[in-house]
Amino acid sequence: MNVDGERFLKDLHQLRSFGASGTGKGVVRPAYSSADIAAREWLADRMRDAGLDVRFDPVGNLWGLSEGKSLLIGSHSDSQPEGGWLDGALGVVMGLELARAAREAGGPAVSVVSFQDEEGRFGVTTGSAIWSGGLSLEHADHLTDSTGTSFGAARAAMAHLAQDFVDPARFSGFVECHIEQGPWLDEAGQSIGVVTDIVGIRDMRITFEGAQNHAGTTPMHLRRDAFQALSAFNTALNDRLRNVVTPASVWTIGHVHLHPGAHSIVPGKVVFSMQWRDGESVRLGRMEKVIRDTAAEIADTMGMGLSFSEMLGLEPVAMARPLRAAIADAAQQVAPGKWREMQSGALHDATNVAALMPAAMMFVPSINGISHAFEEDTDEDDLLCGLNVLAQALPALAGAGH
Amino acid sequence: MNVDGERFLKDLHQLRSFGASGTGKGVVRPAYSSADIAAREWLADRMRDAGLDVRFDPVGNLWGLSEGKSLLIGSHSDSQPEGGWLDGALGVVMGLELARAAREAGGPAVSVVSFQDEEGRFGVTTGSAIWSGGLSLEHADHLTDSTGTSFGAARAAMAHLAQDFVDPARFSGFVECHIEQGPWLDEAGQSIGVVTDIVGIRDMRITFEGAQNHAGTTPMHLRRDAFQALSAFNTALNDRLRNVVTPASVWTIGHVHLHPGAHSIVPGKVVFSMQWRDGESVRLGRMEKVIRDTAAEIADTMGMGLSFSEMLGLEPVAMARPLRAAIADAAQQVAPGKWREMQSGALHDATNVAALMPAAMMFVPSINGISHAFEEDTDEDDLLCGLNVLAQALPALAGAGH
Repeated sequence: MNVDGERFLKDLHQLRSFGASGTGKGVVRPAYSSADIAAREWLADRMRDAGLDVRFDPVGNLWGLSEGKSLLIGSHSDSQPEGGWLDGALGVVMGLELARAAREAGGPAVSVVSFQDEEGRFGVTTGSAIWSGGLSLEHADHLTDSTGTSFGAARAAMAHLAQDFVDPARFSGFVECHIEQGPWLDEAGQSIGVVTDIVGIRDMRITFEGAQNHAGTTPMHLRRDAFQALSAFNTALNDRLRNVVTPASVWTIGHVHLHPGAHSIVPGKVVFSMQWRDGESVRLGRMEKVIRDTAAEIADTMGMGLSFSEMLGLEPVAMARPLRAAIADAAQQVAPGKWREMQSGALHDATNVAALMPAAMMFVPSINGISHAFEEDTDEDDLLCGLNVLAQALPALAGAGH
Repeated sequence: MNVDGERFLKDLHQLRSFGASGTGKGVVRPAYSSADIAAREWLADRMRDAGLDVRFDPVGNLWGLSEGKSLLIGSHSDSQPEGGWLDGALGVVMGLELARAAREAGGPAVSVVSFQDEEGRFGVTTGSAIWSGGLSLEHADHLTDSTGTSFGAARAAMAHLAQDFVDPARFSGFVECHIEQGPWLDEAGQSIGVVTDIVGIRDMRITFEGAQNHAGTTPMHLRRDAFQALSAFNTALNDRLRNVVTPASVWTIGHVHLHPGAHSIVPGKVVFSMQWRDGESVRLGRMEKVIRDTAAEIADTMGMGLSFSEMLGLEPVAMARPLRAAIADAAQQVAPGKWREMQSGALHDATNVAALMPAAMMFVPSINGISHAFEEDTDEDDLLCGLNVLAQALPALAGAGH
C-alpha cells in the first residue's frame, strides 16, 4: 500500500483555506461556523472522491464509511476561536489519505471521521462525547456557548445534512493522529509519540467571599480581602501539592474574577478556576482533597465564606495495547530512535471513543510546543513521517481488532 | 446664632429623594445624571431662599455666594453608582443650614458649594480639581467614563445653567463636613473626628508577561504563568512592606485581569492595579521603591516581562491649623470626650481646595464603617452633633482667615 505524501499535504493546506486567519497558517473555524460547515462539506466531497460512503450525523460529526467492519481513523476539523491549522485537521486528513490509499491497494478497510466541537465551544469534546454515550443529546442541546447560543440552535445550521448516528459496531478500533501540543518531542528532536494513556481531568470554580470595603479608609488589619485569600490559597496549595504529585501532574488557576474589581475598593469576592490533571484517578482524588482542605483552611483563617461549584471530570484512559504495539513497531521501522512512548496531557476525541472500542493515539511534534494559536506548526518532514508510520502500521492495526 | 436641626434634617432627607434607589436610604445620583442635575437645581432654589447669590460654573459646580469675603462650606451632591444618602450630601446641606442660620443672625458671611463629580465618574474629585487648577478643563474634556462618554459631552447637559468660574479670592477658607467612611469613630462610640491631614495616594497598573500555554500539556517546571507571578509578588510584597509602613498605611490590589482567562490555558499575562496610601510623602516613596523592586525581582526570578503604567498620585495634605483648632475647641465644648483627631484615608474635595486657601475637615461616624453602598448611614444624633459643632466653631472659623 502506497500513501501519497504530496496529495496528503495538498489536502491539508487546502483545508486551512476554510476560515484562514490571514496570520501565518492560522485558522478561525469554530464548531458550526460557516467556515467549519464549508470545510466539512469539502471534506465530504474528498471522501466521496475516495469511494467512501459519506454520512453527517445529527450533531454534525462527518463520517466517510468503508463497507463491512473497518478501522476508524480521524479526529476533528473544528478549531479554537484562534486556532492552528493542524489541531484536529491533521488527524482527519491523515485518515482520509490512509482510507484512500487503502482502497487503491484493495484493503484493509478504513473509515474516516471528523468529530464536531472537539474544541468545546459548548462542552468538552462535545461531538464524540455524544456519539459515545458519555453525554446525552437532550442534555447537550441546553449547553450554551459564551454568547448564550445553545448547542441545539447551533447544530440546526447542519440539520439539512443530518442522517442517523453511525453504529459503533461497524468499527474494529480507532486511531487518532494529533499534534503533541507540548514541548517534549520538539525538544528531544523526535518525530513520533506513541500515546500510552490520556490523563484525567478535574475542573471546578472556587469562591472566597470576604468584605468589600473602601481601599483608603479600611485599615489592613480589619480587611477581609478576597484577593489576599486567593493569593494565600495559591501559595499554600503549591507547597502542599508537591508532596502528592508526580512531575507529570499539572494544576492551573487560569481564570480569576475579582468583585467589584476597582483600584479603590478592597475586593469582597473572588471566583476563580481550579483545574488539575493526572494519569491516575487515585492521584486526582488525592489532589482534590488537598485543594478542598487548603481552601477550607484559608477560609477559616481569613474569615472568608467558601463555596465550590460542581466538579467536572473525565477519568484517565489507557490506550489499547495491541494498537499501541502496532504503532510502536511501525515507528521503530520508519523512524528508529526518533520516537518515544508518552502520556497525553490534553483531552482528545479518543478519550470518548475508547469507551466503545480499542483506541490509540499517535503524536507528531509541535514546534516550540505551541498550539491553540495561529503560530502552531509542525515540520513537513514530521507530518510525512506520521503518515508513513500509520501506513506501515495499518495491516497490524486493522488486524488487531478482529 | 441658632441652627435649625429639624430644617437641616428635612433638607437632607429631601435631597435623597433625587435618585432614590428604593433600597434603604440609598441613592443613584452619579455626576451629570438627570437625578444629579435635578438635585442641584433643587439645592440652588434652597440657596436662593436663604438669600444667597446662586451660580453654576462651567463644570456644574454649584455655588451659593454671600457678599464680600466669606467662609466657604460644602462638599459634593453627586453619588457613587450605588451610593449612600450622606456621602457628600451631608457637607452640602450642612453648609446650606450654616449659611442660612448665619444670615438670619446677621453674620458671619458663609458661602456654600456643591462640587461636581467628586465620586470620579470621569477622574478623581473632578469638579474641585478643575476649579482649583490641578486639572485643566481642556484635559478634563477628553476624560471618558466607563461607557466611553466624554467629560466634555457630559457637562454639556448643564451648559444652559453655566456662568463663569468663581474667584477663589472671595473665600477666607474652606470647611468640609463628611462621613468618616471608616470604622474608627463608630467603634469608639465617638461623634466627631477633627481631620489632621488627608493621606496621599499612589496608583498604577503593573503587568507581568510570561507565556500562554496549554494547561494540560505544559509541565509545571516549563511554565511561565503570569498568575503565579502575581501571587508570588503579592506574598513577597506583604512581607516587605511590613518593615516600611505604619498601622495607618494601606495598599490594595483591587483589580486583576488575566489573559486569556480560560480554565484550560496557563495565563500568559496579568495586568493588575496597585494602589497605596499614606499620610507622608516620604513613606509613599519608600513604599513605591519596595513595590517596584519586588516586582522586578519576581519578574527576574520567574522569567517574566514587567511593565509599569504611568503612576498617578496626590500628595498628602495637612489641614490648616487655625481652622482645625477652631473645630477641636468647638467639639470639646459640644461633645466633650466624644471626639478625636484623625487622618482621612479617603480623598475629598478639600484635598484640592487646600491648594487655594486654608482648608479643614470634620468627620461624623459611619455606622459599621460602611460607605459607597446603599446601607451607608449615620445616627441622627451624630448628624446634629456635627451641625452644632460647626455652628459653635463658626465665628472662629470665619475669623481665622482674615
